[in-house]
Amino acid sequence: MASPQHRPLALTMGDACGIGPEIIAAWFRSAEAGGAFVVGDVAVMRRAAALTGGLLPVARIDRGEDAAALPSGCIPVLQADGIAADLVDAPLGAVDARAGAAAARCIEQAVALVRAGAAAALVTAPIHKEAFAAAGIGYPGHTEMLQALAAAPGAVPPPVRMMLANDELRTVLVTIHISLRKAIEAVTFDAVLETIRIADAAARRFAPGRPRVAVAGLNPHAGEGGLFGDEELRIIAPAVQAARAEGIDASGPFAPDTVFMRARHASGHPGEFDVVVAMTHDHGLIPVKYLGVEHGVNVTLGLPFVRTSPDHGTAFDIAGKGSADPSSFAAAVRMARTLADGAGQVGELNLASGASAS
Amino acid sequence: MASPQHRPLALTMGDACGIGPEIIAAWFRSAEAGGAFVVGDVAVMRRAAALTGGLLPVARIDRGEDAAALPSGCIPVLQADGIAADLVDAPLGAVDARAGAAAARCIEQAVALVRAGAAAALVTAPIHKEAFAAAGIGYPGHTEMLQALAAAPGAVPPPVRMMLANDELRTVLVTIHISLRKAIEAVTFDAVLETIRIADAAARRFAPGRPRVAVAGLNPHAGEGGLFGDEELRIIAPAVQAARAEGIDASGPFAPDTVFMRARHASGHPGEFDVVVAMTHDHGLIPVKYLGVEHGVNVTLGLPFVRTSPDHGTAFDIAGKGSADPSSFAAAVRMARTLADGAGQVGELNLASGASAS
Repeated sequence: MASPQHRPLALTMGDACGIGPEIIAAWFRSAEAGGAFVVGDVAVMRRAAALTGGLLPVARIDRGEDAAALPSGCIPVLQADGIAADLVDAPLGAVDARAGAAAARCIEQAVALVRAGAAAALVTAPIHKEAFAAAGIGYPGHTEMLQALAAAPGAVPPPVRMMLANDELRTVLVTIHISLRKAIEAVTFDAVLETIRIADAAARRFAPGRPRVAVAGLNPHAGEGGLFGDEELRIIAPAVQAARAEGIDASGPFAPDTVFMRARHASGHPGEFDVVVAMTHDHGLIPVKYLGVEHGVNVTLGLPFVRTSPDHGTAFDIAGKGSADPSSFAAAVRMARTLADGAGQVGELNLASGASAS
Repeated sequence: MASPQHRPLALTMGDACGIGPEIIAAWFRSAEAGGAFVVGDVAVMRRAAALTGGLLPVARIDRGEDAAALPSGCIPVLQADGIAADLVDAPLGAVDARAGAAAARCIEQAVALVRAGAAAALVTAPIHKEAFAAAGIGYPGHTEMLQALAAAPGAVPPPVRMMLANDELRTVLVTIHISLRKAIEAVTFDAVLETIRIADAAARRFAPGRPRVAVAGLNPHAGEGGLFGDEELRIIAPAVQAARAEGIDASGPFAPDTVFMRARHASGHPGEFDVVVAMTHDHGLIPVKYLGVEHGVNVTLGLPFVRTSPDHGTAFDIAGKGSADPSSFAAAVRMARTLADGAGQVGELNLASGASAS
């Protein structure tokens, strides 16, 4: 097996009717292109290449390893098995069962390649929930599907967490797609401690030494000593202590309204922390998205392989126009490379520099 | 009574042992100084003037109107009644009952001046909760005290709301200093509608015409159609509809993780909304504070007069060092001027330009 730095990244095409194929093609036109191949459909990727203007050949490959041998200036595509022969006829910008099924096949085959060591990491273009459902795919989204694919048959899937990251800030979420009311109930000692562990393990890939893990509170002013809620005293502070006892440099709980500002890495403003654990979806995502979604990257932590994705969906409203912005996808590719290269290979995470897109 | 534009602002000194007097003195040294007087203690303000370096005379005045007649380059101070003669002996950087009592007296007298038309608006330097308590002042903070002072004797205090604002973003909060669990219960139709009305009325002061009031949801993805919580369907959407029926340009509920980004006014990024109504303390404050607290301004809406304050506390740890940053206080003064001048006097709110600090 080649060293991680020399193995290519596997890029899944996503929903063929959305902007996924286009943003991948646009990325292959960029100066950062290289060291990656697409798991998808050759005809769909040819159409996407044409949509993004100018000559960009699509080269069909049979094994991920062959991608490295191709000249630059083309898109290496590993044709996924089990895709409808007429997938390219599915209308752009609409839900289509063929596209949902094809997206799932690409994910399955890309995961198998990554797990077999033929690819260093997985970068997924957006899928469409309703197309998945139309195709009878029993997962609401990528995360659940990847979690299931990561487990041995019959085994309990590994605990996973969502990390959202941009150039300035990384947050890992204790709870995600549930009501705020249920999220409060889901903030348990075990869930917080597990999230701190997962955040710490991930941060070791981009922060040299012992990463500084800040833990945000749940309540205003982190509960103000119990005056505005006691989850900090009962649950979060003990979980932080337990993490410290395991050798993790965790601190908090901190007031949610200032901890993200304190963790922000910007010019003239070195962040105080390497990663912030947030109790709720919106505490964590509001600051990451505030400066613009185009550079946000979604990372699934806890899987036995690296998986990143852009922080946007299929954008059916602009699919096929060749106008989709590939910035977030490009950031996802850089992040995948950084995480796959691992600790010691990179210093401070800097998505903007592209320094680690070797 | 002079027109609002020509009336001075009343600045309360805040806790004499904190950074309040210093940041006021520092502001009087700035190019923006003028059109304002301090309600405080002459001796404390003399010490603060000396702490901030260089000559800066303190001139005792007897009526707010006299401030305009003083030459620039001095601090006009209206000596508040009922202040301990030895207030200036209270040690800097510590809780002192004399300082708590004096801060309360300054607020009472400044409110009386504003209500009598002798001042255009109120800008308050930070008080200390424990010093208030040590002095037997029965209010936990400014907001509650001002609310009580605004009500006729025996009458129900007016509903007030907190607005946090900086150059880029204004948010008005439905709930503030309660646990997240209680905040969910406090998100009622009446509370949301009242907040939208108050936000709209305030926004008319800085947004020409009909302000665009965005209403954030409570749950992730604003509930995703009821899948992640139903407060949006049951409470928030009906309140938005009721506000629209009253002629307010309210919209939403929007996903909390992107509505603040969408409302952000920045260079090359015109915000889609003039103000955002947030359901919880941290949904609203995380984005306002994310780029730094030094330019944040706290505005109490719903009072019969304009009141602003800096977005920080007494900072006992650096009190008396002359190093406190007056940026947030300066922004609070500019905001008070903008709001007091009212609609038609100013165009787009731009705290950074100082254009409205006339």
